[in-house]
Amino acid sequence: MTLDEIIEQRKSLAIARVTKAIFPDKTNHHDTLFGGTALQWMDEISFISATRFSRQRLVTVSSDKIDFKHPVPGGSVVELIAQVSHVGRTSLKVQVDMYVESMYQDGCEKAITGYFSFVAIDENKQPTPVLPQDFIDLCIAKNSATPLNDND
Amino acid sequence: MTLDEIIEQRKSLAIARVTKAIFPDKTNHHDTLFGGTALQWMDEISFISATRFSRQRLVTVSSDKIDFKHPVPGGSVVELIAQVSHVGRTSLKVQVDMYVESMYQDGCEKAITGYFSFVAIDENKQPTPVLPQDFIDLCIAKNSATPLNDND
Amino acid sequence: MTLDEIIEQRKSLAIARVTKAIFPDKTNHHDTLFGGTALQWMDEISFISATRFSRQRLVTVSSDKIDFKHPVPGGSVVELIAQVSHVGRTSLKVQVDMYVESMYQDGCEKAITGYFSFVAIDENKQPTPVLPQDFIDLCIAKNSATPLNDND
Amino acid sequence: MTLDEIIEQRKSLAIARVTKAIFPDKTNHHDTLFGGTALQWMDEISFISATRFSRQRLVTVSSDKIDFKHPVPGGSVVELIAQVSHVGRTSLKVQVDMYVESMYQDGCEKAITGYFSFVAIDENKQPTPVLPQDFIDLCIAKNSATPLNDND
Amino acid sequence: MTLDEIIEQRKSLAIARVTKAIFPDKTNHHDTLFGGTALQWMDEISFISATRFSRQRLVTVSSDKIDFKHPVPGGSVVELIAQVSHVGRTSLKVQVDMYVESMYQDGCEKAITGYFSFVAIDENKQPTPVLPQDFIDLCIAKNSATPLNDND
Amino acid sequence: MTLDEIIEQRKSLAIARVTKAIFPDKTNHHDTLFGGTALQWMDEISFISATRFSRQRLVTVSSDKIDFKHPVPGGSVVELIAQVSHVGRTSLKVQVDMYVESMYQDGCEKAITGYFSFVAIDENKQPTPVLPQDFIDLCIAKNSATPLNDND
Repeated sequence: MTLDEIIEQRKSLAIARVTKAIFPDKTNHHDTLFGGTALQWMDEISFISATRFSRQRLVTVSSDKIDFKHPVPGGSVVELIAQVSHVGRTSLKVQVDMYVESMYQDGCEKAITGYFSFVAIDENKQPTPVLPQDFIDLCIAKNSATPLNDND
Repeated sequence: MTLDEIIEQRKSLAIARVTKAIFPDKTNHHDTLFGGTALQWMDEISFISATRFSRQRLVTVSSDKIDFKHPVPGGSVVELIAQVSHVGRTSLKVQVDMYVESMYQDGCEKAITGYFSFVAIDENKQPTPVLPQDFIDLCIAKNSATPLNDND
Repeated sequence: MTLDEIIEQRKSLAIARVTKAIFPDKTNHHDTLFGGTALQWMDEISFISATRFSRQRLVTVSSDKIDFKHPVPGGSVVELIAQVSHVGRTSLKVQVDMYVESMYQDGCEKAITGYFSFVAIDENKQPTPVLPQDFIDLCIAKNSATPLNDND
Repeated sequence: MTLDEIIEQRKSLAIARVTKAIFPDKTNHHDTLFGGTALQWMDEISFISATRFSRQRLVTVSSDKIDFKHPVPGGSVVELIAQVSHVGRTSLKVQVDMYVESMYQDGCEKAITGYFSFVAIDENKQPTPVLPQDFIDLCIAKNSATPLNDND
Repeated sequence: MTLDEIIEQRKSLAIARVTKAIFPDKTNHHDTLFGGTALQWMDEISFISATRFSRQRLVTVSSDKIDFKHPVPGGSVVELIAQVSHVGRTSLKVQVDMYVESMYQDGCEKAITGYFSFVAIDENKQPTPVLPQDFIDLCIAKNSATPLNDND
Repeated sequence: MTLDEIIEQRKSLAIARVTKAIFPDKTNHHDTLFGGTALQWMDEISFISATRFSRQRLVTVSSDKIDFKHPVPGGSVVELIAQVSHVGRTSLKVQVDMYVESMYQDGCEKAITGYFSFVAIDENKQPTPVLPQDFIDLCIAKNSATPLNDND
């Protein structure tokens, strides 16, 4: 099994989702979701996706430019889907898409896309590989025993 | 397309997930997740799943007996998966499973299973069908045009 | 003083109450209290009642079936009253009743009843008596000195 | 039944309690409860007590000098008890006592006492009697029928 | 008074600050501030600065790339300072700098800089000038009467 | 440089501000800010101001009588400004003024003034000087090198 295959396998394992109902405590006085609340949710779910990929200690280092194309009205449901989009030696980038749907009809629409970058750090808070060699070895060993499943 | 097929199709559309990192603001002084916080999350995600199935106004009417088999330690990640398990005329039951995983190694374990029941209500807060006839007709019409996809 | 008398005495000491005003940050878009928020409050107050009874480390192990008979409207006041209803060797069951009252007229109505079970655990997270022998001895000693009062 | 008797009766009806466990999300980095959080809780429970007495629309107009005699450590339980202490024509004063107890032994200690004042306001936000004549008449009528009970 | 002078005057009026202590409920399990929480605070304070400049209804439309240079440790104090950095016809850009200081010694350090963009919207949620002509006229009128002061 | 000069210099360094938009999650069902929420904010910002002055461990010991002159409507912006008003040997008093402004027009109005007192405590939780001698010496040394600036 090649490193690229390990990476692709871990990317699919690392997809993370969060679904939320937009109730009055999340909206401003125009009854739309706060932009800052959306950013907070995007950071949290991208952190979880990055952690599932790497299983190391990670910290957020940057967020890319984010467009809030559509205001999200109170009383809707949003789903955020995060997936690792780029893997460096000590850093990772995660793409997060946020979809909005009405509570009362089928169908959804993409409202926001963002990218968050993380670095892996060791106990001394120094950058360390996101996929250390022993962890790669463990993945390879597991795969020769039984194929790794997307187990959620 | 039969009503049973519509129901099965809507059940698969209605699956809802929420993934959360258990940070210190969610844990008690033994550093484990509050049982009550888990219940709140289970109610919210089961409400979203029920809403996606029915697209009507719904209210929680009961929660079944819930066992907290495994304490959930601070610093873990939990994923809740909700799916409609029973469809009555004016009520719905949703099963929610909560899985726990370590941040720092692969694999997860089921920690809690619960069932939440909802009823559909009309403007006068009276019970009303969870799948009204015009909504069923709409689903059938959509399906003869293009097959309904699991679009998230 | 018999063990049964100690238990009855501790049950009356262990009653716990919490009163809350239902403001907009606690309600959904139908302006009624979230079911999940009620569950969270019931778990917390039943934990306090169980702790006052036992004075050991306790964890929630289950909640029984709970019916949400009456929706709780925004702008009302609720009072939750928790009392120990069953005492086992290493476990306890607590009954919680939630009453609703209008802000603007006298009178209240029972809205929800629930039961939460707890186990006492030791430092190794193993079950341990909810009333250890030395604690019972202490209670008996206190009572022969001065009768235990319901001191709040 | 005299007005003084009505007032005494309503005072006893208006006692309000709230019990809380002090978990890590409520404490500062010295692991003691924030003074400001205690003030917020005292304002809320005194508002409920004042509302139960008067059943009119009330707003907080002042808090008296408050001494924080004892720091409240994380991992304790607090109980706040609010009772109407002074009744004016359009205003009310409520006394709130906050008691602290350890989770792991019997007994409690008073930590804070405070006084909060409220005024009753009408739809135009103008002061209005805390006990309007028609409300007093209603209380008298109820009492001649059946004695008013402390019904919680 | 020229439009440029009005704009400079309003920029200085529009500076907004928020100071916060980083207590345990704001930090992750490495005891550093969540990146997403910092983003939420930056969005809120930049919204206030933009609102003070324009006094119109504004919505967040984008955040620029943001670098989290320094982790912010629990137990520190942060101050966010927001100021309008660019004024378009229907949009505004606000710069937010976040400074970190220790509780126990003097001095502070810039930790994050971000830019948030807002558009002014009318009742139909359509873009509208951030400085409408009648508002500019009002500013000019006020200034010929008495010089506008930085009144906080 | 005299002690009085040091004190005046530190007072100006210690001014702290917090600006907040009053969104629906902060208001009661009359759509005005909770008195208790204002108290919580005043305690937090006065703690920050006291900490900036003293750089010692501080705890809140009392709040003086506080009048809530003006209700603060939802949809406004408030700014709290805290400054040290009295310096004792082991204690400090901080004045906090809260100003309210409309989102949609210039100008603000003072709504609340309060005073919070703090004591400095050592590791054994005993009172200790708010300005220890070695800290005063450090301030004098810094000032003879370069004048201390109000550096935010």
